Amino acid sequence: MTIDLNDLPLRDELRGMRPYGAPQLDVPVRLNTNENSYAVPDVVVDAMAKAVQDELRDLNRYPDRDAVALRTDLASYLGHGLSAANTWAANGSNEILQQLLQVFGGPGRTALGFTPAYSMHPLISVGTGTRWVDGKRAGDFSLSVEHAVAQVREHRPDVVFLCSPNNPTGTAMPMDVIEAVAAESTGMVIVDEAYAEFARPGTPSALTLLSAYPRLVVSRTMSKAFALAGARLGYLAADPAVVDAVQLVRLPYHLSALTQAAARAALACADTLLGTVEAIKEQRDRIVAELRTRGLAVADSDANFVLFGGFADSAGVWRRMLDHGVLIRDVGLPGWLRVTAGTPEETDAFLAALDRSMS
Amino acid sequence: MTIDLNDLPLRDELRGMRPYGAPQLDVPVRLNTNENSYAVPDVVVDAMAKAVQDELRDLNRYPDRDAVALRTDLASYLGHGLSAANTWAANGSNEILQQLLQVFGGPGRTALGFTPAYSMHPLISVGTGTRWVDGKRAGDFSLSVEHAVAQVREHRPDVVFLCSPNNPTGTAMPMDVIEAVAAESTGMVIVDEAYAEFARPGTPSALTLLSAYPRLVVSRTMSKAFALAGARLGYLAADPAVVDAVQLVRLPYHLSALTQAAARAALACADTLLGTVEAIKEQRDRIVAELRTRGLAVADSDANFVLFGGFADSAGVWRRMLDHGVLIRDVGLPGWLRVTAGTPEETDAFLAALDRSMS
Repeated sequence: MTIDLNDLPLRDELRGMRPYGAPQLDVPVRLNTNENSYAVPDVVVDAMAKAVQDELRDLNRYPDRDAVALRTDLASYLGHGLSAANTWAANGSNEILQQLLQVFGGPGRTALGFTPAYSMHPLISVGTGTRWVDGKRAGDFSLSVEHAVAQVREHRPDVVFLCSPNNPTGTAMPMDVIEAVAAESTGMVIVDEAYAEFARPGTPSALTLLSAYPRLVVSRTMSKAFALAGARLGYLAADPAVVDAVQLVRLPYHLSALTQAAARAALACADTLLGTVEAIKEQRDRIVAELRTRGLAVADSDANFVLFGGFADSAGVWRRMLDHGVLIRDVGLPGWLRVTAGTPEETDAFLAALDRSMS
Repeated sequence: MTIDLNDLPLRDELRGMRPYGAPQLDVPVRLNTNENSYAVPDVVVDAMAKAVQDELRDLNRYPDRDAVALRTDLASYLGHGLSAANTWAANGSNEILQQLLQVFGGPGRTALGFTPAYSMHPLISVGTGTRWVDGKRAGDFSLSVEHAVAQVREHRPDVVFLCSPNNPTGTAMPMDVIEAVAAESTGMVIVDEAYAEFARPGTPSALTLLSAYPRLVVSRTMSKAFALAGARLGYLAADPAVVDAVQLVRLPYHLSALTQAAARAALACADTLLGTVEAIKEQRDRIVAELRTRGLAVADSDANFVLFGGFADSAGVWRRMLDHGVLIRDVGLPGWLRVTAGTPEETDAFLAALDRSMS
């Protein structure tokens, strides 16, 4: 007996959906998922290898369910007077967001976001039975205090998603928007700071607001600046009560002993690992400048990627770039494309392929 | 400003709950979470170290989102003509069960189980907004075809949980019960076989039913027989359509490159890793026999643990055993306790502590 997806008793809202995810294609230049283009340095590889090796013999035992040592190291990296009680870690920030929605969202509750923003925010909302309301940004992708506060007032959301620096636009959110939303909201306010380490000088983090707003949560990841997308380590910083709350829904032993050990070893090498950040920001700024020279519309970027547009046929440009061996991202905004900032050679390849694809 | 859990806008059903999980105590003899007491053998440690080492440099890249190589190896281990298309892997079988409930359970839907069974089944149901119905086992923990089918008929569940060998009772479920539930049910039927490798000779796996029942799912784990609780690798086997379905809700890149590599290396050493199973079964059978000699009630066990009872004050016995340095499990069944079967020395320590705790 063989069946297909539609023969199964799927939830109605999943019918006709396709799995989320960018194409994983084997091409020479991959600039589509905002990975860090720099391989993990040998000294960090050695430190992680040793840390992981030390765990292998005792893998017959469950890991520390509360990941206390890792959370202590994460708090110490973040600073701002945070401790282990303020942090929580999971398999990527997606799992962090899912846990937050399981506690504070879910059936009968509402999450508000302002798109275009990280596309997993609505998907994780749907996946947890949370109603998603799109507060929408302005045509130039900006989000004003007035609009954000009006949306919070209108929808009284249980959870608000803010994304700063915003993906896919790249621009950090003004602190007065975050603070106004936090002040107005009676629910939780999640600031997704996956790209925080790439922000332009003088861009504050929402971590500075945590002590004033106990329902504010900052989510972070080691996938981007730390160059550890493959290790899957996301985390949050918040009031200790929020950490207590997610522990009510986290799956027991969700974070493996290998993940905990690898992440701790990486955090001990933070200076080395983050050594690529300045070089990436240089390429990011170079891409912004080069694209503007070409007369394209380019969003200001505080991230390791750049959103650029003005194309009559962005899908066609995307396909032609792929033909030239450069994979960038069609984020579903007609006329716009997104490119990850990587090495100088990748920028060269990107610009050359773009010039050929536009002509 | 400091707040506590109750000041936060938690979901109502979470209020007053405490995080799930057995105590993680540092005592000489830990027999409370059904871990495999044998450390990972050196030859497997070396193989896993090499496999993990090979991934570290490229951790800047996301892992294979579909974990195809690992799923191929899992299918090959399971046999029964299964292929990668029939398997799916996640961070522990808890995440497997959560993904299945996100697709097939959730708000407005019902999951049926028969307790006492694995205590995460109702908790993951609640965590995904699925209504939980307890079909209950008989007083002797048995589950008849007639009762199981009547419960399915009465509640028309969207998901049925069967657990075989059952945790915490230890006894495998007769195949005619599984088959009758699969035949009667219009929803999904999940057979949780976390302890399958420890079953007594002649105990078939529900894997043999997969080709006949496309809505049947078998979940497994590498935490028990494979002695890899710390690595967090659960998986399922089912019709390929079921695998397509969970991909609609899985978080993208949920399974790290390190987890995939470590699990593949372990599967390549399956014979060595599973070399402890016979020794553990011997201790399990010894524990059953010894406890019966003492006049206690003991459930037949196909697992690496034994449920035993007849205590007026099981909580008191549990506490006194802990005072003697032996941590076992109070599973919340008044009069009963559960002990993991480990090494011969652990059995000695368990029996000695029990004798002192009962007198």
